[in-house]
Amino acid sequence: MYLEKINGPADVKRLSPTQLEQLCREIRGVLIKTVGKNGGHLASNLGAVELTVALHSVFDSPRDQIVFDVGHQCYTHKLLTGRYDRFATLRRAGGLSGFCRPNESAHDIFYSGHSSTSVSAGLGLAAAKKMHGDSSYVVSVVGDGSFTGGMVYEALNNGGRSGARHIIVLNDNKMSISENVGALAKYLAVIRSTPQYYTFKASTERTLRKIPSVGQKLVKRLYDLKTDIKNKIYAQSNFFEDLGYRYMGPIDGHEIPVLIDALQAAKAVKGPVVLHVLTQKGKGYPYAEADPSAYHGVAGFSVATGSAPPPRTDFSSQFGALLCEAAKDGAPLCAVTAAMGLSTGLQAFSQQYPDRFFDVGIAEEHAVTFASGLAKNGCLPVFAVYSTFFQRCYDQVVHDAALQKLKLIFAVDRAGFVGEDGETHQGLMDVAFLNTVPGVKIYSPCNYRMLRADLNTAVAADDGPVAVRYPRGGEDARTAALHCGDVAYATLETDGTEVLLVTYGRIAGEAVEAVQTLRGAGVAVGLLALNQIKPLPAAALEMMLGSRAVYFFEEGLRSGGTGERAALELLERGYRGTFRLTAVPDEFVAQATVKEQLKAYDLDADGMCRIIRDCEAG
Amino acid sequence: MYLEKINGPADVKRLSPTQLEQLCREIRGVLIKTVGKNGGHLASNLGAVELTVALHSVFDSPRDQIVFDVGHQCYTHKLLTGRYDRFATLRRAGGLSGFCRPNESAHDIFYSGHSSTSVSAGLGLAAAKKMHGDSSYVVSVVGDGSFTGGMVYEALNNGGRSGARHIIVLNDNKMSISENVGALAKYLAVIRSTPQYYTFKASTERTLRKIPSVGQKLVKRLYDLKTDIKNKIYAQSNFFEDLGYRYMGPIDGHEIPVLIDALQAAKAVKGPVVLHVLTQKGKGYPYAEADPSAYHGVAGFSVATGSAPPPRTDFSSQFGALLCEAAKDGAPLCAVTAAMGLSTGLQAFSQQYPDRFFDVGIAEEHAVTFASGLAKNGCLPVFAVYSTFFQRCYDQVVHDAALQKLKLIFAVDRAGFVGEDGETHQGLMDVAFLNTVPGVKIYSPCNYRMLRADLNTAVAADDGPVAVRYPRGGEDARTAALHCGDVAYATLETDGTEVLLVTYGRIAGEAVEAVQTLRGAGVAVGLLALNQIKPLPAAALEMMLGSRAVYFFEEGLRSGGTGERAALELLERGYRGTFRLTAVPDEFVAQATVKEQLKAYDLDADGMCRIIRDCEAG
Repeated sequence: MYLEKINGPADVKRLSPTQLEQLCREIRGVLIKTVGKNGGHLASNLGAVELTVALHSVFDSPRDQIVFDVGHQCYTHKLLTGRYDRFATLRRAGGLSGFCRPNESAHDIFYSGHSSTSVSAGLGLAAAKKMHGDSSYVVSVVGDGSFTGGMVYEALNNGGRSGARHIIVLNDNKMSISENVGALAKYLAVIRSTPQYYTFKASTERTLRKIPSVGQKLVKRLYDLKTDIKNKIYAQSNFFEDLGYRYMGPIDGHEIPVLIDALQAAKAVKGPVVLHVLTQKGKGYPYAEADPSAYHGVAGFSVATGSAPPPRTDFSSQFGALLCEAAKDGAPLCAVTAAMGLSTGLQAFSQQYPDRFFDVGIAEEHAVTFASGLAKNGCLPVFAVYSTFFQRCYDQVVHDAALQKLKLIFAVDRAGFVGEDGETHQGLMDVAFLNTVPGVKIYSPCNYRMLRADLNTAVAADDGPVAVRYPRGGEDARTAALHCGDVAYATLETDGTEVLLVTYGRIAGEAVEAVQTLRGAGVAVGLLALNQIKPLPAAALEMMLGSRAVYFFEEGLRSGGTGERAALELLERGYRGTFRLTAVPDEFVAQATVKEQLKAYDLDADGMCRIIRDCEAG
Repeated sequence: MYLEKINGPADVKRLSPTQLEQLCREIRGVLIKTVGKNGGHLASNLGAVELTVALHSVFDSPRDQIVFDVGHQCYTHKLLTGRYDRFATLRRAGGLSGFCRPNESAHDIFYSGHSSTSVSAGLGLAAAKKMHGDSSYVVSVVGDGSFTGGMVYEALNNGGRSGARHIIVLNDNKMSISENVGALAKYLAVIRSTPQYYTFKASTERTLRKIPSVGQKLVKRLYDLKTDIKNKIYAQSNFFEDLGYRYMGPIDGHEIPVLIDALQAAKAVKGPVVLHVLTQKGKGYPYAEADPSAYHGVAGFSVATGSAPPPRTDFSSQFGALLCEAAKDGAPLCAVTAAMGLSTGLQAFSQQYPDRFFDVGIAEEHAVTFASGLAKNGCLPVFAVYSTFFQRCYDQVVHDAALQKLKLIFAVDRAGFVGEDGETHQGLMDVAFLNTVPGVKIYSPCNYRMLRADLNTAVAADDGPVAVRYPRGGEDARTAALHCGDVAYATLETDGTEVLLVTYGRIAGEAVEAVQTLRGAGVAVGLLALNQIKPLPAAALEMMLGSRAVYFFEEGLRSGGTGERAALELLERGYRGTFRLTAVPDEFVAQATVKEQLKAYDLDADGMCRIIRDCEAG
């Protein structure tokens, strides 16, 4: 097995073309086996195997810096840069990340996880190299889906005139996360259908490369010649060349010799280059080839049959079903998603109401302002978005939605810990940043019953944006014990109790168990599970004010969160009791299971019990 | 005078071409006079006079919805929609806004102030109209500067396939705020130099228009014919047509009959259209024509001589000078700006260090990630940005800068109240949202001495982003009374005092006066002026803990601000005294002078005195 012997890019460079092909087969085997077991991104990684092998054959990482956009295509890169032996730990606590992590390897140049950042980052890296007179290369590897994000365009607009040695590899697999949308997709389809104008004979190239400096010049001259030919073939100009980039492509992204030739030619160009590579998502695993969307991000599957455990009911699917219900009842609902229709539970809605379903691409900023336009003209838009990606449109929430008190709904999915995706994907900030937006209301249901109530409240609201946030996964059965006196909050055992555990959202189930355990041990604690967290319900504040001790547990940031807010209100009202906030401190949270993450921050039943018991004892 | 008789768009439609030209002259006179007196955006508004008159001749506002991007070109729109009689109140408390404000007029469709949002908003409006079977129009008026923002591209990527009746008027004045940058600018220059292919004879058009429905079809057929001709003239394709838009232009934006014809033709197209209009910034006022940048946003000037009061030293200019100093001393500084080089004080730096100065266009997201790339490869980038625009790159600060602990500096200008620009421009959120970003340090100097100390601290910092935030305008001389024992904070009269006034930033000067006034009246109050606000200095917390009463005044949001943070820390540490936070509540702050805004929120010396006196008495 070649893969076992690859300790770094130098070992890749030693293999013959035939051996590289064998290496690719081995890599695919490892990818399928590991993702089948640990979950992760499969289809996009399978599509980028040859491309990544070619990159490490041609470039000298980490001196040459390869930046992977999003990171859905970086597994092969990990396998080739000394991490094969740890690959079984992928996405596990203490193990390899499913994304690029500079703290994991010198070959991981930039953190990845959010889309469309690699061109900007690459351009910055290249500009710094230029400033330092460093002639090594920067390569940004970007999927066509990421090209629907505006940041890429902002970067291209700068890069085209920069003169920086920046190579952008457009990994065109004809799909973004759910389905490629928009004009660019159409445009790429046109390019794909035109004859390939970049073709070097591998043998010519190899000969040329033997004479290093002269060879490079010849390669460049050959390229220029091809460009002339291209200009004749293409009556239409090329989007990238309009922006100042040398465009090369499209080439077959599964032919290693072709890839190597093209990357060598790209190196020979002095200015910025776009190399357009066609790949197939899921390549080499028939089930993934047949349905790449289903194998984009998976929780695990049987390698032999391709079958995954049947989808369980979770907050996302419940939200989707409730949305269809509300639309049926006549609410003028529109659903907006930034390329996350499937994973936010909008599939049924998109089928039942195709005219009211908008997948805008990976473009969260546009999504919010577009939704604001819909709202202004009488629709009721619901933007379903992961908490972590919602961070990307903070200003649009402020400037376009909240400022004009438009009625729209933010369905904030994956709020709280997200588990295996790690620090780039945690949904720990949405409460804190939404707290800063005037007039926005926030609900954080702890189970499906509450979710239904909150969506109904949001649909019936007078004006202003309403955010309903809920975690990844399903409801916690333990929350059934809660007594819902008011839609704003629920309680358990609060009568005549002087000690109050306050929390909200997913961990209300942990809190129920903690309260029951503590009561069993003779510590009389009541539970206040908030549902409406902005503004804080007056009655909830009254309950806290009447307590001797308040233990606030929050699955979110300590800074700017609900606990901090409550502390201010209590202090100003002259509260004199004990107050203790347990939340996520000023740090990023690494990958692990959600259970492990809750435990690490004392946000599970055990942690709650210990903190309250210790404080009450002391 | 025609302008006096214009009560709405219907009155514009009644005027002959010659009368419309006279109207334009009158409008220019009013614009120059009013902006000379009240300050505001002059050059861009002067450039859009004929365009706006033509828009209101052709479209039926507010049924047809005209959305102005940023709003730097909306003054004529205000004059034509019943606001001439109030125009002298422009930018004053209770008066007309310098931007579009839906709460001011039904003709102001969307709030404006931040760039590059109007295409998304317009597309949302148009999609809703399509859904409701409403055949009226939506027009987005966008300057070429706004096209450097990625949101426009995200919207175009969706709009080109939407089939929505959305007309985008690209107001190409060859300049963004300071200087147009990037590949798009170059591309537009190429378009401008090619022959104009859209030309209808005004007479033909007028005849055709007399036969309404048939006329529209003929106009369309004529247009299609022209398109064929165009396709032959343009060997190159057109960026906008690649994206699915019908492109028309470029046309002369100062010829009303040409504009009217073109807008009529755009109306005849069923799908989305881009109309490319060439205008001259500052048109009709020689001083502004000669130096449009100087008349972009002005504080007032003499109409006769064009001369403005000489620029005063302010925090921006001090920052710029200090940056040049630090670069001279050898720090590997780079300056990054999102089209705000002039107003953030970077002019000298850009001249002295052109290779280390990056104006990226109106692209705050790219700016932060690009700067992160620079930082990763050994530069020390300083991103100078207005507080309000900094909101636009929240996620990039989190995901690209803070997460990998990159050392870069955010110079946050216009922090706090900004005065006349009003609710879209207030710098009241930066502290609150930066508080949520793990590892970011925040400094908020109250005078130039502190600013220097803070920048030195930032340059010398080990790792992680450092934000230094400072207000619009100059230092408050009253802060000279402060005693700086520690760079983290300054004090006044704190020895043996049980009552503490705590604040930071600009209003430290007001606090000095308040403390002196209160002491004069026999109320012994000490002053703690924080400079480092994240993390909160331990010694400052100790001082608060040792007080009987803490009065915290914050020129920023109450939610998630420094006062709230302090409240949590105090409460958890068992503080039992009085705590009162005076800050900006959960609302947007309208235009007025900064002095008026401080007064309205009890953040001036009078308000501070009153609050402390009342509380201490009660």
